[in-house]
Amino acid sequence: MKLESISSPKDIKECKIEELEALAEEIRTAILRQVSEHGGHLSSSLGTVELAIALHYVYDTPKDILIWDVGHQAYAHKLLTGRYEKFFTMRQRGGISGFPKRSESIYDPFGTGHASTSISAALGFAVARDIIQKKNHVVAVIGDGSMTGGMVFEALNNSRHTKKNFTIILNDNKMSISPSVGALSKLFSNLSVKHSHSLEEIGKFLRSIPEHIGGGKLREFMESGKLALENMVSPGQFFRDFNVRYFGPFDGHNLQELIDTLNGIKELPEICLVHVLTQKGKGYELATTNPTKWHGADPFHIEDGTVVVEKPRPTLTSIFGKTLLTLAKQDKKIIGISAAMLDGCGLNILKEDPETSDRIFDVGIAEEHAVTFAAGLACEGFTPVVAIYSTFLQRAYDQIIHDVALQNLPVVFILDRAGLVGSDGPTHHGALDLSYLRTIPNMVIMAPSDENEMRNMIYTATQYKEGPIALRYPRAVTYTNEIRTEFSALPIGTFRVVSKGSKVLLIGVGFVLAKCLDAAGVLEKNGIKPTIIDARFIKPLDIKAYQALFKEHQVVATVEDNSTTGGFGSAIAEIIAEMKQAPCLVRIGLPDSFVEQGEIDELRETLGFSGNGIASKILEVL
Amino acid sequence: MKLESISSPKDIKECKIEELEALAEEIRTAILRQVSEHGGHLSSSLGTVELAIALHYVYDTPKDILIWDVGHQAYAHKLLTGRYEKFFTMRQRGGISGFPKRSESIYDPFGTGHASTSISAALGFAVARDIIQKKNHVVAVIGDGSMTGGMVFEALNNSRHTKKNFTIILNDNKMSISPSVGALSKLFSNLSVKHSHSLEEIGKFLRSIPEHIGGGKLREFMESGKLALENMVSPGQFFRDFNVRYFGPFDGHNLQELIDTLNGIKELPEICLVHVLTQKGKGYELATTNPTKWHGADPFHIEDGTVVVEKPRPTLTSIFGKTLLTLAKQDKKIIGISAAMLDGCGLNILKEDPETSDRIFDVGIAEEHAVTFAAGLACEGFTPVVAIYSTFLQRAYDQIIHDVALQNLPVVFILDRAGLVGSDGPTHHGALDLSYLRTIPNMVIMAPSDENEMRNMIYTATQYKEGPIALRYPRAVTYTNEIRTEFSALPIGTFRVVSKGSKVLLIGVGFVLAKCLDAAGVLEKNGIKPTIIDARFIKPLDIKAYQALFKEHQVVATVEDNSTTGGFGSAIAEIIAEMKQAPCLVRIGLPDSFVEQGEIDELRETLGFSGNGIASKILEVL
Repeated sequence: MKLESISSPKDIKECKIEELEALAEEIRTAILRQVSEHGGHLSSSLGTVELAIALHYVYDTPKDILIWDVGHQAYAHKLLTGRYEKFFTMRQRGGISGFPKRSESIYDPFGTGHASTSISAALGFAVARDIIQKKNHVVAVIGDGSMTGGMVFEALNNSRHTKKNFTIILNDNKMSISPSVGALSKLFSNLSVKHSHSLEEIGKFLRSIPEHIGGGKLREFMESGKLALENMVSPGQFFRDFNVRYFGPFDGHNLQELIDTLNGIKELPEICLVHVLTQKGKGYELATTNPTKWHGADPFHIEDGTVVVEKPRPTLTSIFGKTLLTLAKQDKKIIGISAAMLDGCGLNILKEDPETSDRIFDVGIAEEHAVTFAAGLACEGFTPVVAIYSTFLQRAYDQIIHDVALQNLPVVFILDRAGLVGSDGPTHHGALDLSYLRTIPNMVIMAPSDENEMRNMIYTATQYKEGPIALRYPRAVTYTNEIRTEFSALPIGTFRVVSKGSKVLLIGVGFVLAKCLDAAGVLEKNGIKPTIIDARFIKPLDIKAYQALFKEHQVVATVEDNSTTGGFGSAIAEIIAEMKQAPCLVRIGLPDSFVEQGEIDELRETLGFSGNGIASKILEVL
Repeated sequence: MKLESISSPKDIKECKIEELEALAEEIRTAILRQVSEHGGHLSSSLGTVELAIALHYVYDTPKDILIWDVGHQAYAHKLLTGRYEKFFTMRQRGGISGFPKRSESIYDPFGTGHASTSISAALGFAVARDIIQKKNHVVAVIGDGSMTGGMVFEALNNSRHTKKNFTIILNDNKMSISPSVGALSKLFSNLSVKHSHSLEEIGKFLRSIPEHIGGGKLREFMESGKLALENMVSPGQFFRDFNVRYFGPFDGHNLQELIDTLNGIKELPEICLVHVLTQKGKGYELATTNPTKWHGADPFHIEDGTVVVEKPRPTLTSIFGKTLLTLAKQDKKIIGISAAMLDGCGLNILKEDPETSDRIFDVGIAEEHAVTFAAGLACEGFTPVVAIYSTFLQRAYDQIIHDVALQNLPVVFILDRAGLVGSDGPTHHGALDLSYLRTIPNMVIMAPSDENEMRNMIYTATQYKEGPIALRYPRAVTYTNEIRTEFSALPIGTFRVVSKGSKVLLIGVGFVLAKCLDAAGVLEKNGIKPTIIDARFIKPLDIKAYQALFKEHQVVATVEDNSTTGGFGSAIAEIIAEMKQAPCLVRIGLPDSFVEQGEIDELRETLGFSGNGIASKILEVL
């Protein structure tokens, strides 16, 4: 059975174990080829190859429902479900997604991307099935990292009550994106397959105690005791408290064991959790020794793991990390918090520095808790800096409103990956943060247009004690050569005039200011020298200063890497619409629809986010 | 010790148990007096009187930090912390809040209102304390209902990792707002105080087995076994998995037991959970027999529990319930979902009706799960109707975006308590939903201006299969006498012209359309007959039709019971700002700040939300 000849999971149903094992090797080769050429999620996808084969071998997909939590581990699943040819277009514009996606395949019944959703969705499928009296199985595959997300517990709690049957595969690789943290991780980490044997032995010893010295009562006690002892070394009771029947742990790379187990539990009329131990990066040695580094990989040479194109400059993420490290060394009240993303957000260098290490908290995939935990710290006079990707901070929207803004606590929010993120696509674009943060009372929102401004904004944020303050910037490398060392605080709510012109007023929000400068070049060729503004603040706005400027111009164009619905352009619209003699507004930004994957620059071009695109929209209005 | 003479918790430190018991009675009397006169949260506050006394007796507040989760059970706490005189102003305009509030008292270190935040905040306080090497205790009091909220688990999981000491008081009254649901509730419900005794007895029996027949090994086993057996009847192990030391259950109305227990665990260097059993409504028999009804009470006669003022008309909540009941009987694909608010959202009548009961799900306080669970159901062709208060739906913002809107699933969102809610104040006003929903791609948003339109919108929503659709309405009674029985679907995105005029265009969103009619009356006295529009849809908008209308008028005024920042007015601003010859916009709605408590009509008047207020703003612009 050659991988390229598999058009659906039906094609593997007749395979022998050896053939499936050979298939696993082929799948690993395909994954390595794709990720080494185009980048992607390597470690977790290499870890679930046997699991994907076993699931499709045992279950009757797509009739049986298979949901991959987060979904970046589902590459083998894609290869087994008729997407071999398209596989090498993955994460590219027009290609298949790096995540399960309903519109892409009938084998993807539920799209994923953000963590911890699979059990809730599975319960939905199971309830639906029972109401319409369909006969199918529902399976959610969830990693140990995703288990720290609160909604998993909400789902488990509700599942017990509804008494529906479905299966949870706990893919335990002792990692989420960073090594996972907290109690659950500890619960799992004591485990290995051999523990179940020692339980057996203790059982045998106890059974050997003769009847006449109280064996009956002892047996009774032992029965409950065994369950309980199991607990001391396994998460069995933990899940049993939720009425979930626990099986495991099993070797997630042993196809025969996986297939036998799944066949064994498949028809059980209860919620089953199958605990599977897998190794991130399995089959590619470099990845197994450093799975965090190889979680999301840029294109690399398979032989030695070196990247194909060295990044020419540091990332904004690292600028943030270095800047906060400097500030945190001076100000002992600064505390860094992230949600399973210390590396991704640049806080790792503070975690590694002995002077700041104790003040850096990775709370796991737990954005809600991260924000309210920060609120508690702020009450005691600390300056918590919560660094979470723009798209994931959506998870803590209520906590930002209710626990931080309502109490007007000085919590700093750092939103990395704001705006378009590229190949991760619509689940990961940070397209909405300006819109959802702007509506929150007491919130201050900034976006830097270059690295030095970014450093000053980080400084401004940590100095600001009046309430919550947010800073957002894109996934990007730096452009500026000279990083200055001094800091200066920016007056809250002020913009910066980049250059004075007439007729047209261009307002750039954040790094897309560069596109305004490009547009100005095009406009100048058309005889128009526009005024250019670096917005700096999205909230509050210096309304009077803006009104004065607006009166001097015929057309105002806002350019932002955020939805134009409710974003910065909308804030400017609020001002302009209330003026009596107002200029005409052109809002340029992300559309009111979900943007697909692709190279960031390519996507921007398509969305009219280029010098030419912006200029032509303005000329149209003039 | 008379209650009115207590100016701080120091005043009770020297009291004898009998005096404290007498004090408890006085507190109950004060609570009954206040709630019977002005309404409020009765059952839960009556249940925590002894607990509040014991906590303030044992701990050194405000140096020791005491956080009340949700906070509607903290009336006794308010009475003990120098707020006796202001107590009878509670929940009224200018009076003290019905919830703990930082700005109100140094004894309220963390404001609450939404559930499940206390452990996250407590961890923040504990971490802060240890960094600055302060010596104080941190205590979070959390009900069993709040334990179903996912962020509690995020906090427990993170707490284990950070190894900070604090105390959790689990106030187990076997209820959240509705009887709590799911696994945790089951876990607790097997419990009563006597169970701990039977454990003791089993222990004694096992210890009696002589040494020479293997006593040593047995004792070892028993030690782990006892822990584990405890588990069979208690949530001990469950919490131990999170490294939380479990104590209990204790009688929450026995002051001596509570005080001894708290003194016993106070200095333990670990995270302790004290499980306390309390009775909702304790001391007022009517409330103990029907605690759900008496959770939030309107003013009533203490003697017989009858309400002082009968509601003159049915509530919008009941209109929703009845309408959905009718529709769900015809359409078996309709499924109702709420988060511990079946009664509050009007779904209780569907739960009680045998034809629909099986299709109504109360998932507990678990808004995130509720939404993704609905998404799963929608994938299988069902029409899930998720009914959650506007302010609480903020909790599921990411799930609405990522699991519903991105997949364009037909989930119906019903937002009760949208706009100002009155005496519950800023934690509970539904001031932001139009803003936060409007920015989500694919979302349709409606607001009815009367009950018949509301019925048609519910019908429209359940008929709509193109994607997510939301309907929001205020906490209010109905105004219309004639409820029609037929349904007709509204064309998506259309508005309704109420009356044609000139010069001024008034657009009302939802029930505040009535205020536009009042304003029209005032304007007509000033010689202006305005055009009046019932917006019906907040998204999408019929932009061309609006533009045509805008061209015919000089001033456009939007009136909405939502923040004007990012709300409907902002959507209209987006249209007007892009027009060349545009009218002047006046946005009337909630301010970009948190609105305090008070009677809804009174608050509206203050915010310029009256016929006169609206008219004068328009006349100003003209």
